Amino acid sequence: MSIAGVDSSKHFLGLKGMSATEISSILDRAAYWEQYPVKVTNQLQGRFVANLFFENSTRTRFSFELAQKRLGAEVLNFSSAESSVQKGESIYDTVRTLESMGIDAGVIRLKPIGILEELAAKIKVPLINAGDGNNEHPTQALLDLYTMRKHFGEIKGLTVAIVGDILHSRVARSNLWALQAMGAKVKFCAPANMQASELSGHADYVSFQEALQADVVMMLRVQLERHEQGMIKSAEEYRKEYGLTVERAAQMAPHAIIMHPAPVNRNVELDDELVEHEKSKIFTQIGHGVPIRMAVIERTLA
Amino acid sequence: MSIAGVDSSKHFLGLKGMSATEISSILDRAAYWEQYPVKVTNQLQGRFVANLFFENSTRTRFSFELAQKRLGAEVLNFSSAESSVQKGESIYDTVRTLESMGIDAGVIRLKPIGILEELAAKIKVPLINAGDGNNEHPTQALLDLYTMRKHFGEIKGLTVAIVGDILHSRVARSNLWALQAMGAKVKFCAPANMQASELSGHADYVSFQEALQADVVMMLRVQLERHEQGMIKSAEEYRKEYGLTVERAAQMAPHAIIMHPAPVNRNVELDDELVEHEKSKIFTQIGHGVPIRMAVIERTLA
Amino acid sequence: MSIAGVDSSKHFLGLKGMSATEISSILDRAAYWEQYPVKVTNQLQGRFVANLFFENSTRTRFSFELAQKRLGAEVLNFSSAESSVQKGESIYDTVRTLESMGIDAGVIRLKPIGILEELAAKIKVPLINAGDGNNEHPTQALLDLYTMRKHFGEIKGLTVAIVGDILHSRVARSNLWALQAMGAKVKFCAPANMQASELSGHADYVSFQEALQADVVMMLRVQLERHEQGMIKSAEEYRKEYGLTVERAAQMAPHAIIMHPAPVNRNVELDDELVEHEKSKIFTQIGHGVPIRMAVIERTLA
Repeated sequence: MSIAGVDSSKHFLGLKGMSATEISSILDRAAYWEQYPVKVTNQLQGRFVANLFFENSTRTRFSFELAQKRLGAEVLNFSSAESSVQKGESIYDTVRTLESMGIDAGVIRLKPIGILEELAAKIKVPLINAGDGNNEHPTQALLDLYTMRKHFGEIKGLTVAIVGDILHSRVARSNLWALQAMGAKVKFCAPANMQASELSGHADYVSFQEALQADVVMMLRVQLERHEQGMIKSAEEYRKEYGLTVERAAQMAPHAIIMHPAPVNRNVELDDELVEHEKSKIFTQIGHGVPIRMAVIERTLA
Repeated sequence: MSIAGVDSSKHFLGLKGMSATEISSILDRAAYWEQYPVKVTNQLQGRFVANLFFENSTRTRFSFELAQKRLGAEVLNFSSAESSVQKGESIYDTVRTLESMGIDAGVIRLKPIGILEELAAKIKVPLINAGDGNNEHPTQALLDLYTMRKHFGEIKGLTVAIVGDILHSRVARSNLWALQAMGAKVKFCAPANMQASELSGHADYVSFQEALQADVVMMLRVQLERHEQGMIKSAEEYRKEYGLTVERAAQMAPHAIIMHPAPVNRNVELDDELVEHEKSKIFTQIGHGVPIRMAVIERTLA
Repeated sequence: MSIAGVDSSKHFLGLKGMSATEISSILDRAAYWEQYPVKVTNQLQGRFVANLFFENSTRTRFSFELAQKRLGAEVLNFSSAESSVQKGESIYDTVRTLESMGIDAGVIRLKPIGILEELAAKIKVPLINAGDGNNEHPTQALLDLYTMRKHFGEIKGLTVAIVGDILHSRVARSNLWALQAMGAKVKFCAPANMQASELSGHADYVSFQEALQADVVMMLRVQLERHEQGMIKSAEEYRKEYGLTVERAAQMAPHAIIMHPAPVNRNVELDDELVEHEKSKIFTQIGHGVPIRMAVIERTLA
């Protein structure tokens, strides 16, 4: 959020550099919406919010759409499944086109790395990051923090171990920046070829054994196509080395919790029996996504 | 609707076992909505209904969406065309995810056989069956019954011949249960390899000649891919043996009607000239789908 | 709009034969909506408008959807990407199906040539043309005229050069009829194999040199698949001969403007640097699409 020309107070691109005060105020507002007595308000009546998904994710789009409709906004969906736009230039043309039509904000999800900031520098309507390459996925991290704060009372002082493909994970990066801003300690656990060199110095890589001692064990989804790319041997092999199995989960502290951004590859990074285990917060996290996104959309359009 | 744990009064999964009184009350309520003087009401204002189509059907989704919007509900669409979810486990994870986000009900369509009841046992929000494998398609049968009742005055005493691929037809099954509950006589007419052994004892298989004597001749859509599976020789051959041709239709009684769940394979199971023939109720049936679905959704969310 | 049975006052199929008075009244009403102080009105409250896109165009659908929602209508989207309907007969069955469900109007886009008029003769609800084969794309031409009128004050007396694949262009045809009705002079510029013989006598083909002297230079999008069809040698070759390059644009009159229906193939029919050049009205055109479509939908549903 620091390249020339990007007005970080207008867009909502990432959590890197965001202060604890700002993060807390979003979490507080999400708590307000979670408790709100009616489902639909007229907060954003007459405002048009577009979901611009250049990378498919029905679940994330669905969560944003619920948040938008609960705020009373008019919602328009655009997905690249319907179009063949993928290059940076044509993504710009598409977003600029939809902006010209008169939308008030865009929720955007992109696969190519490094395009979002460039785009944000040229687009006038506020953009909200719904997943940006391997860079940031700020609303996911905020719902994760919300879940931790709700469970533990405060985030400060927690140890959070993030386990899996750190290299390609925007969830890991957004959580890293936000958790550190809030005073939590972040540890990574990943196979050597899934470690992110550009993050070295920000968090230590520890053994799975040590990761299991954390207050929060956050498992990342493994992309099974990494097998074809030679990064993992097989799903079974990955489970054996980096999966949270029932046996490993038994070593976690009694108060500790399991998190995962979903969808889970059952019996790969997380054993089937753990998905709805009493330690697991997975579906609770998903539920928190809607009030978090309400708070973010409202703030961006205010 | 009888496996352990499935609360049949919460979900709307099928017509098997439903009483004539219950069916009639839905038909009555549909009649109320069909006559309703304005298009959009605030009956379900602030309620979120999701269309969860794991099997594509733009027409059925469109009909449900119209019904939902006429009731004033907020509508969210999910379709598997956008996602690759197809296995039972991941269907569960997806529905559980959308439930966690706070939908009030789900309209669900599934291809795999035997998944819906299992799912319904685990999902807390009410689910409405919009097509379940080859098991049931209750709103289709209800709109068929509504059409018959409107045309003949009452359903009791009618003879309904259902012609075509009974084996794979959820429409045939839902009609069988509902028509029998209402006191109609059901006859099947199908090639030997398209008869459903598990239904034997419930309805007799008769010749096409005898089927043509019924008050209602309900033609089923033939899946043309059955040819590749060796179940039919060709579209032309199918028409010759099991298609309702102009010649065959001429043998129907003057008061008798033609029905079909649509879309029709013209000149395969039904001759082109018969689609909008005066005996045909096909587009009338489609029109009745909206008030029927309003009645079902309203009842499920009440 | 002249075949037997097509009630041209009910549907909105094309601009051929439309009077200057009618066109002006639509442009005036668009100006009213462009200035309208609030985004969403209740003009079409309780009316259901369906976007029936048998040919994909996310941008055009998005523009129509914005217009519909700004008018307060209920919007339903159908796209053939979700279905395999492509033949004339099944397009009819689909539209007739959605009509039977109770929509109040359909915005329709079709690839096959010659189907829309036939369809309109049989469908009772008003249809609005959102792109009809190579025949007409009336709302695109109206937004083009709106842009010209707004820029030059009036359309009468302007010279408009349309450059590119005239043969396959519905944009060229709709602009031709409307511009001539309004008293503008239209010139075409196209390679020999992209000229439309059926339009000969309506507009002269001129050299690119002469086209550059016009008040408006309207570039058409080149379909790059024309290369495979042997109609163009390559994108580079096309640019060299029929692309508006920076050098060519420098020869335009100081007051003249560049238009394009978008999306642009940058550096093929239009140089990258010209897309947002001060002479270019491309994103302005896109912005005008929404009020134009509001005016057309409102008029058709009135």
